[in-house]
Amino acid sequence: MSKQALQQELLSVIQWFHAKGWAPATSANYSFRNPAPDQNTFTISRSGIDKGQFTVEDFMEVDANGQALEAFRSVKPSAETLIHSMLYEQAAVQAVLHTHSVVNTVYSWKHRAAACVNISGFELLKGIAGVSTHETTIQLPIYENSQDIAYLSAHIRESLHNYPGVPGLLLAGHGLYAWGSSIAEAKRHIEVFEFLLDCLNQLEGR
Amino acid sequence: MSKQALQQELLSVIQWFHAKGWAPATSANYSFRNPAPDQNTFTISRSGIDKGQFTVEDFMEVDANGQALEAFRSVKPSAETLIHSMLYEQAAVQAVLHTHSVVNTVYSWKHRAAACVNISGFELLKGIAGVSTHETTIQLPIYENSQDIAYLSAHIRESLHNYPGVPGLLLAGHGLYAWGSSIAEAKRHIEVFEFLLDCLNQLEGR
Amino acid sequence: MSKQALQQELLSVIQWFHAKGWAPATSANYSFRNPAPDQNTFTISRSGIDKGQFTVEDFMEVDANGQALEAFRSVKPSAETLIHSMLYEQAAVQAVLHTHSVVNTVYSWKHRAAACVNISGFELLKGIAGVSTHETTIQLPIYENSQDIAYLSAHIRESLHNYPGVPGLLLAGHGLYAWGSSIAEAKRHIEVFEFLLDCLNQLEGR
Amino acid sequence: MSKQALQQELLSVIQWFHAKGWAPATSANYSFRNPAPDQNTFTISRSGIDKGQFTVEDFMEVDANGQALEAFRSVKPSAETLIHSMLYEQAAVQAVLHTHSVVNTVYSWKHRAAACVNISGFELLKGIAGVSTHETTIQLPIYENSQDIAYLSAHIRESLHNYPGVPGLLLAGHGLYAWGSSIAEAKRHIEVFEFLLDCLNQLEGR
Repeated sequence: MSKQALQQELLSVIQWFHAKGWAPATSANYSFRNPAPDQNTFTISRSGIDKGQFTVEDFMEVDANGQALEAFRSVKPSAETLIHSMLYEQAAVQAVLHTHSVVNTVYSWKHRAAACVNISGFELLKGIAGVSTHETTIQLPIYENSQDIAYLSAHIRESLHNYPGVPGLLLAGHGLYAWGSSIAEAKRHIEVFEFLLDCLNQLEGR
Repeated sequence: MSKQALQQELLSVIQWFHAKGWAPATSANYSFRNPAPDQNTFTISRSGIDKGQFTVEDFMEVDANGQALEAFRSVKPSAETLIHSMLYEQAAVQAVLHTHSVVNTVYSWKHRAAACVNISGFELLKGIAGVSTHETTIQLPIYENSQDIAYLSAHIRESLHNYPGVPGLLLAGHGLYAWGSSIAEAKRHIEVFEFLLDCLNQLEGR
Repeated sequence: MSKQALQQELLSVIQWFHAKGWAPATSANYSFRNPAPDQNTFTISRSGIDKGQFTVEDFMEVDANGQALEAFRSVKPSAETLIHSMLYEQAAVQAVLHTHSVVNTVYSWKHRAAACVNISGFELLKGIAGVSTHETTIQLPIYENSQDIAYLSAHIRESLHNYPGVPGLLLAGHGLYAWGSSIAEAKRHIEVFEFLLDCLNQLEGR
Repeated sequence: MSKQALQQELLSVIQWFHAKGWAPATSANYSFRNPAPDQNTFTISRSGIDKGQFTVEDFMEVDANGQALEAFRSVKPSAETLIHSMLYEQAAVQAVLHTHSVVNTVYSWKHRAAACVNISGFELLKGIAGVSTHETTIQLPIYENSQDIAYLSAHIRESLHNYPGVPGLLLAGHGLYAWGSSIAEAKRHIEVFEFLLDCLNQLEGR
């Protein structure tokens, strides 16, 4: 797939998530791994754009350290670009999506003292790549939020191996990250986690 | 009605249910009985499609055993096709719809130990074919979820006669099935059950 | 305003209320008083139409007794037409709208033993014609639901004078009626009551 | 930016907020400071318009005292115009937006006896101009509602300096005001506060 086609695909996802209310104000950020031979660079939404008005002009490209490529030096990357580039260290990750819903904010805030949320029993778990039954337990990690993104991404890098096969994480009171082997898979993972967190929130009596 | 017209009608329903949030990720599946002389075969949504991007190209046809017809052998049918074909054993059933809403997931999970949910007193019960007053009690069965769909469909077949005149069932933590004598009627039944489960969820204090 | 213009105006309201989820399945009905010299007849939505597919062809006309006019004898009027015609006995009433939301169903069901709901203190009360301050109390009557519409409309007629200046009523577990001196005013009253019932539901802890 | 461009920008915001359900009935009002050399006059939505049908024809212009300019003498300004003109006494304020959501009504009503709501810990706080970390506390003032807008705006004027850097306020049981150095910033502030109040409402158990 060409970079242009990937941009169009991601743009559709951005518009859908905005319509769902998962990107209020100018929050949320989104990226994909550039196609070969540039797979060590990434296309990412730039900072501060109202996602209801996002266009392909609002994408920028960064390297594996989260630094803007030459052609995009005048554009401010999102502070959280470092989390994206850290997640791309996993070779299979082709897209990283980050949403700010009321549901994921409320749930992660309530459980900010926990290491992870255990999710089991729901059919929709099967929407996660590699999961073939509801009779399983997924541990979605919850990290304390921090404005020191270099620290935060290093901290996540160190512990993420404790959650094999779980393509997502929560930042407490902040939002949800999910990723996948394609934009479509990462989108599916976001929808699965948003749905399951909504169920859990309600079952816990909020 | 021609198969093409039925496909268009079902496609509209699929898009509406997706907009309602009742088919997150790539969940939910939908079918109708093919028109005569092919009424022992069924048109069904194929597996794994994001319902926000569903087109008529994503329909396939199966026989009474849930096996893909010759022309569709290369397409993967949904695992749940067997539930659809079991429901079509009732001659009057012309359409089967299956949704995954937060509401039906939460409600069926809370009551997963119950055999059924009793619903009475609400005017919207009259949206169910054959019901002419709110002063009645509908028993919507709840089945334990299973990945063994052959077992599950056989199990449902054995007990569904205990719920005469109730065109729907819940799979606990999984979703809602509803059916009818037309696509429009099956759609109406889904809307009735989704609405009533939402009311019950709220009245129970979630 | 011509009957055609009024039909177009009401059609827009029907589509908006459907999009809000206030007319699930084929529920809800809507009417306006025909313009002079036919002001003793009414245009009303016919029974059993999915409001997502409603067109001007789905309107019919009835007389002051709720009977179909000559040109519409082949069309089935809604059972609730009698409630509309009873409300039009108030000369100032030009439009009657009836919605089935989860909010009004849950609230009216919880309080089905009460004669009315008292609403006070909210700024949006000023959306009701004649109300100029939030420092007032509106008593919205709640009636027990009945399938005997002749009885129900007679019962409402007898007691509605106890609620002067309140352009709405609840049927317990059924829905909300609101009316006004124009389609726009009746629509505004529906939106006001739906909003305030939603607030009350949440403040009561559901 | 020309007045026409600003009108178009604000019209888009009005339509988006209406779609979100933040302007039920004919509630909510919106304004911007006119461009130089007319920066002591303001363009504001006129009173009583259904925001689902709002067009640029429904804007009017007022002076620093909230009085209609000559060309708009025949148009009724909103009673709340005085709150807008009071807020424009802050030279940096370029736009003032006012929404009536269920969320802000419920939250402000529950806490109507409090002077303000304290909000801290959430990443979305960074959507407020000048806030660069979630590790802060924003105090959003809550005022008792009043129909005496001259009194209310004078009362707010006297105390608003107690809440420096907080571009919003609640009127209890009434709604939310937010402002900013541009229409886009004021819109962002509304979205931030609506989001955070929704989170707080849920975390408090409603």
